[in-house]
Amino acid sequence: MERILGVDIGGTDIKLGVVGETGREIVSGRIPTRSAEGPRRAAARVREWLDAHRPAVGDVAAAGVDCAGLIDGARGYLHVSPNLAGWRDVPLREHFEEALGVAVAVENDANAAAYGEWRAGAGRGLSDFVCLTLGTGVGGGIIAGGALYRGATGFAGEIGHTVILADGPRCSCGQRGCLEALIGAGAILRRAREAVAAAGEARPAWDDALTVELLARAANGGDDIARAAFAETGRWLGIGLTNVVHALAPEAIAIGGGVAGAGDLLFVPARETLRAGLMDEAMARTAVVPARLGNRAAVLGAAMLALERVRGAR
Amino acid sequence: MERILGVDIGGTDIKLGVVGETGREIVSGRIPTRSAEGPRRAAARVREWLDAHRPAVGDVAAAGVDCAGLIDGARGYLHVSPNLAGWRDVPLREHFEEALGVAVAVENDANAAAYGEWRAGAGRGLSDFVCLTLGTGVGGGIIAGGALYRGATGFAGEIGHTVILADGPRCSCGQRGCLEALIGAGAILRRAREAVAAAGEARPAWDDALTVELLARAANGGDDIARAAFAETGRWLGIGLTNVVHALAPEAIAIGGGVAGAGDLLFVPARETLRAGLMDEAMARTAVVPARLGNRAAVLGAAMLALERVRGAR
Repeated sequence: MERILGVDIGGTDIKLGVVGETGREIVSGRIPTRSAEGPRRAAARVREWLDAHRPAVGDVAAAGVDCAGLIDGARGYLHVSPNLAGWRDVPLREHFEEALGVAVAVENDANAAAYGEWRAGAGRGLSDFVCLTLGTGVGGGIIAGGALYRGATGFAGEIGHTVILADGPRCSCGQRGCLEALIGAGAILRRAREAVAAAGEARPAWDDALTVELLARAANGGDDIARAAFAETGRWLGIGLTNVVHALAPEAIAIGGGVAGAGDLLFVPARETLRAGLMDEAMARTAVVPARLGNRAAVLGAAMLALERVRGAR
Repeated sequence: MERILGVDIGGTDIKLGVVGETGREIVSGRIPTRSAEGPRRAAARVREWLDAHRPAVGDVAAAGVDCAGLIDGARGYLHVSPNLAGWRDVPLREHFEEALGVAVAVENDANAAAYGEWRAGAGRGLSDFVCLTLGTGVGGGIIAGGALYRGATGFAGEIGHTVILADGPRCSCGQRGCLEALIGAGAILRRAREAVAAAGEARPAWDDALTVELLARAANGGDDIARAAFAETGRWLGIGLTNVVHALAPEAIAIGGGVAGAGDLLFVPARETLRAGLMDEAMARTAVVPARLGNRAAVLGAAMLALERVRGAR
């Protein structure tokens, strides 16, 4: 059975996994990214990690590498990344092929996560599937007609940067009112803090180290302001889901990423908004489901994309 | 050479064409729809038209039928149509196969137009292509990876009903702030009339029979209010185009339909908004072009979809 290395490069850590053909992770790990040292050093340290685990896992047949940003998978280039400062127009495939000595596929992280969920998680067996990854950023990946859809440039799937509220809050991408500007982690926390201020209340614990996870705990503990922040976020998410259904009509939309850990606090209002927004009941067949692979979706997806490539399936 | 019948059913007229394999129309015509008489009668009158032209064109190998509305092409059903009152859950394929005695493919009109533009117009030879049809309604059709993309339900491509201004103007579909509610013909005329009222001016000629065509003539003749109405519409269109590029990254987006006849009055501000809204210059490769087949796109596309089906290509 072939084994493939998955490499998910984040701003802080690189998540690593050696994956079997069925998508099972045989070994998993994590090393610091140290992006300031540049992509060649990162690739070399991935090689060191792999060498250290070689006695246990043997050789790998290929590797899949993903990170956030605009990636041209066909050419193997990272064009620009929001959380890897200075990695601009990097021949990522070349660097990793040199370091690892095997064929490498590179992909955007949200596309890799969508592919992972499709092959081994919430989208298994579906022909048309969309996966949204909610965190600080909002990523999207589209499976269309049984294949990852990359568009003409390779940059398709940036559903987080579709505008749903023109002239709304400023987004990191420069536009206003993108889905990300309304449901990204920053927007949720801002919403909660503004509501506390508007109500003339105080939540000292929210001042500094508030996270979406802590806010969800407060909401589940009965904090009305926290609940309302998720309800409003869920409504915006629901508008985004309605747009996805009207444009793409997939069999399912999976929602993953850290923010999705808030669960029904988001899912219930999102599904309600979707139901109310659909043009017709006949479009209501699209299921909205939690993603299943947690924060391993991209590692697995990158590995399975690499497997697909070495097999020449596409 | 095989000949195929294309049947584009509108609220008022049925456009008809007998099309050769290359997409050339050999005979074209038009009969009244008379939707109140029902779909069986419409099919029978299409048969009469075909019989009258048979001496000139010979037999047809298949027929493609399209209309506005939610169409399940796989089952051959029209679920519901905005401009064919009472045609609800109609087995359109069955009715037309009975009347015509040949295999029939049915499709949504905007999908048919996109397919026509892809096979014989502005999208020829492209792998990833989107076509928007701007009129009273705003339709969309998606070519993804070299095939018409219908999604899991067959209803994909309803880009006119994606929300770009949440809580904006009410749309015919029930939502607020859909692309259609902002750039459909009704929205353009309302915009112009409101601007006249707000400016305390008078345009008696606009009171009753104003059309987008007349408004475009006024704009080209130097009427500032008319120009501004198109400029604002173009800006909304540009936001819609940006969303399409971010989500689907096609090689080209073609814009057709009656409203697109306004040309640069719309295209210039739309392209400007698109350029400013893109996340990154690397996404600017998508061309925004006028559709080429005018109001024959759907007839041609429906016919060519039927040809594709009888050939079993898909």
